[in-house]
Amino acid sequence: MKVGFIGLGAMGSAMASNLLAAGHTLAVWNRSAGATEPLASLGAKVAKTADRAVQGEVLCSMLANDQAVREVFLDGGVLDAMDRGTVHVNHATISVALAQELAAEHGRRGLEYVAAPVFGRPDMAAAAKLNILVAGKPAAIERVRPLLEAMSSKLWPLGEAPERANVAKIAGNFMLAAAIESMAEATALTRAHGVSAAEFLDVMTSTLFAAPAYQGYGKLIAEQRFKPAGFALPLGYKDVGLALAAGEAQRVPLPFAGVLRDAMLEALAAGDAELDWSALALVAARRAHLDERE
Amino acid sequence: MKVGFIGLGAMGSAMASNLLAAGHTLAVWNRSAGATEPLASLGAKVAKTADRAVQGEVLCSMLANDQAVREVFLDGGVLDAMDRGTVHVNHATISVALAQELAAEHGRRGLEYVAAPVFGRPDMAAAAKLNILVAGKPAAIERVRPLLEAMSSKLWPLGEAPERANVAKIAGNFMLAAAIESMAEATALTRAHGVSAAEFLDVMTSTLFAAPAYQGYGKLIAEQRFKPAGFALPLGYKDVGLALAAGEAQRVPLPFAGVLRDAMLEALAAGDAELDWSALALVAARRAHLDERE
Amino acid sequence: MKVGFIGLGAMGSAMASNLLAAGHTLAVWNRSAGATEPLASLGAKVAKTADRAVQGEVLCSMLANDQAVREVFLDGGVLDAMDRGTVHVNHATISVALAQELAAEHGRRGLEYVAAPVFGRPDMAAAAKLNILVAGKPAAIERVRPLLEAMSSKLWPLGEAPERANVAKIAGNFMLAAAIESMAEATALTRAHGVSAAEFLDVMTSTLFAAPAYQGYGKLIAEQRFKPAGFALPLGYKDVGLALAAGEAQRVPLPFAGVLRDAMLEALAAGDAELDWSALALVAARRAHLDERE
Amino acid sequence: MKVGFIGLGAMGSAMASNLLAAGHTLAVWNRSAGATEPLASLGAKVAKTADRAVQGEVLCSMLANDQAVREVFLDGGVLDAMDRGTVHVNHATISVALAQELAAEHGRRGLEYVAAPVFGRPDMAAAAKLNILVAGKPAAIERVRPLLEAMSSKLWPLGEAPERANVAKIAGNFMLAAAIESMAEATALTRAHGVSAAEFLDVMTSTLFAAPAYQGYGKLIAEQRFKPAGFALPLGYKDVGLALAAGEAQRVPLPFAGVLRDAMLEALAAGDAELDWSALALVAARRAHLDERE
Repeated sequence: MKVGFIGLGAMGSAMASNLLAAGHTLAVWNRSAGATEPLASLGAKVAKTADRAVQGEVLCSMLANDQAVREVFLDGGVLDAMDRGTVHVNHATISVALAQELAAEHGRRGLEYVAAPVFGRPDMAAAAKLNILVAGKPAAIERVRPLLEAMSSKLWPLGEAPERANVAKIAGNFMLAAAIESMAEATALTRAHGVSAAEFLDVMTSTLFAAPAYQGYGKLIAEQRFKPAGFALPLGYKDVGLALAAGEAQRVPLPFAGVLRDAMLEALAAGDAELDWSALALVAARRAHLDERE
Repeated sequence: MKVGFIGLGAMGSAMASNLLAAGHTLAVWNRSAGATEPLASLGAKVAKTADRAVQGEVLCSMLANDQAVREVFLDGGVLDAMDRGTVHVNHATISVALAQELAAEHGRRGLEYVAAPVFGRPDMAAAAKLNILVAGKPAAIERVRPLLEAMSSKLWPLGEAPERANVAKIAGNFMLAAAIESMAEATALTRAHGVSAAEFLDVMTSTLFAAPAYQGYGKLIAEQRFKPAGFALPLGYKDVGLALAAGEAQRVPLPFAGVLRDAMLEALAAGDAELDWSALALVAARRAHLDERE
Repeated sequence: MKVGFIGLGAMGSAMASNLLAAGHTLAVWNRSAGATEPLASLGAKVAKTADRAVQGEVLCSMLANDQAVREVFLDGGVLDAMDRGTVHVNHATISVALAQELAAEHGRRGLEYVAAPVFGRPDMAAAAKLNILVAGKPAAIERVRPLLEAMSSKLWPLGEAPERANVAKIAGNFMLAAAIESMAEATALTRAHGVSAAEFLDVMTSTLFAAPAYQGYGKLIAEQRFKPAGFALPLGYKDVGLALAAGEAQRVPLPFAGVLRDAMLEALAAGDAELDWSALALVAARRAHLDERE
Repeated sequence: MKVGFIGLGAMGSAMASNLLAAGHTLAVWNRSAGATEPLASLGAKVAKTADRAVQGEVLCSMLANDQAVREVFLDGGVLDAMDRGTVHVNHATISVALAQELAAEHGRRGLEYVAAPVFGRPDMAAAAKLNILVAGKPAAIERVRPLLEAMSSKLWPLGEAPERANVAKIAGNFMLAAAIESMAEATALTRAHGVSAAEFLDVMTSTLFAAPAYQGYGKLIAEQRFKPAGFALPLGYKDVGLALAAGEAQRVPLPFAGVLRDAMLEALAAGDAELDWSALALVAARRAHLDERE
């Protein structure tokens, strides 16, 4: 299939590579030029501007946040370059509000819009083992299914309204943040009573919490290894903000999200912006002044 | 081995059964008499008073809370009936403070004290698949190891000071409560945006949160099936209270525990005391007045 | 002095009236036309468009929120109509970020910008008893002092950077919301123990809390009289949002603001948007299910 | 009147002095002996044991907390020393649960029990300007009215059930703590934006919050003068605990109290136990890492 791909961060690059590996023809674009080289060497055509990445009947994009998506797709001219009937597959974690706005704007232009946010880190993207949430018109999804399957271990259909995939992604990231904070507080408590984070989390992540989310972040917390960041605190803060905004839009109180917001702000105030979001464990430990005791 | 066993609720009965099945000789006691019958039919000797359940060199107990443990072991005469060197294996989820008090009192009397709180519900206890946290003197633990192994799939040694096992158990239950609340809030959010709890939790508990804690409670939340309670709200409230008390003792702030406390109080105020603690999902849904929308 | 005045809600109208009463010459404008009539009958010239309200050397504005200010002053043509050196006195409660943007934009155009947010309700505005926070260049403030004094019982100078007055106003409204919530929770507690809100608040607002904020809202809470709203819940929600945004901008965790946010969302979810923000007392009472007891 | 007085801390001593000054005959007792000397020099008889302080028809007590009250009145022999019909006036800030237990125990013994907790610091006690909440049987209150009036500027009758006065006192102290925290957060916010706590609180405590609670603690926060403590953090922590316990007893969620609990624990973890509870402002400032910026 001829496909355009916009946004080549760590995630986007790995996803685009898998499309190439599956035999698709890609035109790629990224804001900063360097990121395109590895893909060019794999056979991708490099577009000089975002609108020139449009080719064939599908355009995938994996941009960082609402602002980037807005600049490229609403303020920029990419949509103008797309032919009627073309499908835009948006993999970004964006707000529910922007998802609705994009769906409406694509509809007005006779373009198809599929929301396809992903769960998984760059290594899982590289291994084509992402979990992809998908929402959009069934016919549009069918057309892009071969692409989605080339990047994922499983697709999770969530209905027709694209924002349904986005709210699920946002709620899922909120659950991840909550899992981290619960380990942060629990280990502050056990440490204060003499049981190390490693001892405690070994039990929990081998038994009741034997799941990727807990095992991955639990290991970082047990080893106090917050650098380099797999998912940096400002990104986590952004995602908690998306949950709060989605709650605001539908008037849903989210007390855990409020606690997360404050803990993350406290981490950022401490200068921890480059740390992984599992560094919430540092915040919990500082509040208990644990380091002054041990 | 000749063993005494005190406390025959759903958990204690299943645990005692496994000791009988492993060939041990049991004398059992329970506050209310009826619970002893099934064990008697399996060959256990039924003691008329708690102190008469003391036999051989080990006494196991599985009582409901601090108050019950205090009444039987500190106010009652059970400790007087135990010979020096006897090991008391306490499986109850009790406070760190009481664990320390019990350890000291046993020490004064020349008795051994092993803390062995368990993770697992009655069905796992019946299947001898509990996870048991163990803390106490190594020699004492070695002596009771055959008993612990007869009830569990795995033992998790946590050192010599008994309260270390208790704080880990308390912190673990806090993590369970936090997992429930995070699903409660996340599903309130997705429901308000049109994605059902079942749709959303199917994704999450099959992927990042594919762990017993999330799968078990996630199913109850997806199906709104909070009755009969596997673990009733007042018990969960008690356990969050143990976490807060352990935090107070060592001056560890636990903001998630504060949120949990309020949500559970709200559930109790609503008259939900007989529901499973996963009914925190009802609280989150009520706060968003979801039922009035759907 | 010849003065333009934009924004004639309950507050703006009362403030403009006092300028007329003090002998100033006013040109007024309001989005919806009806509001201008009473002022016209007092001698104000009614402008057909916002830019035509610009006259003389001072323009005052009292608009509802960031969006209204942005539409009139940044997107609309009012600034183009102002001569260099003219002073814009902005009385609105707006975000710190917008205050900074406005100050910069005025500076670029050679206009003076004075932030002058007010404390006080419409009745105090009518009585010229507002407390006005003022920040801006001293010379500009001196020029508009006669106007400010005609509307207020006291001016509170807060330095040169305009946003300093805005952050103080935002922090002050946050304190008001916190005062309301503290009475809401305290009276839920006393009511549950049989002491009515009126009995309890009579003591508190006559002694330690004998201040306008507590006496005014305490009376509404004691009498459960939340309608008509003096300051409606959505406005309070907006102001708590301004505090959270100001905290985010400088990375200041505000746990009380998080609690307020959730309580207000819960009130809005309950359909209480037309009630006074002291209706937070209803939320606290509902969470404790007090009405089902009494 | 012949009166016994037990508990001569800063508050109790000042209150007892006023009884002497009003012409009453006092027998006094305090756990640590030194505190009795100043009162002895004013004419009080010093009792060697608590029960010997019992004289005449009224016994007043002003002890520190539940534990002290329990030790003296329930575990000690003071009640045995009181004649039937004697009135015990308990000024301490104690739990609702203990107030109920004491009322019942006094009733069983034919003793009268009046709860009379006070608002006011030692200087106000010395000036006989306390506000006293009073609950108990009307006849009993009438008998002790001359004593209460000799210590106070005003009595606040709250009905017959003694615990009504206690829950009001507890709720009032919760409101004080909330007022402090709201100033702590608000000033962290303004400071981060360049407006000092002194500048901001000067406005607020002169206008909307012109009340003793805000003016007194606002001054301490503005001047960062937390030592010597007027009311030390551990006492404030105890009082928030009484509010949480009263909420638990009647299932009333108190989210602000949860935030206060955590902030106070954080202060205690930081080693601030000797500071005034207005040092909550230090916690808010530390979370925002303000000192590293200024």
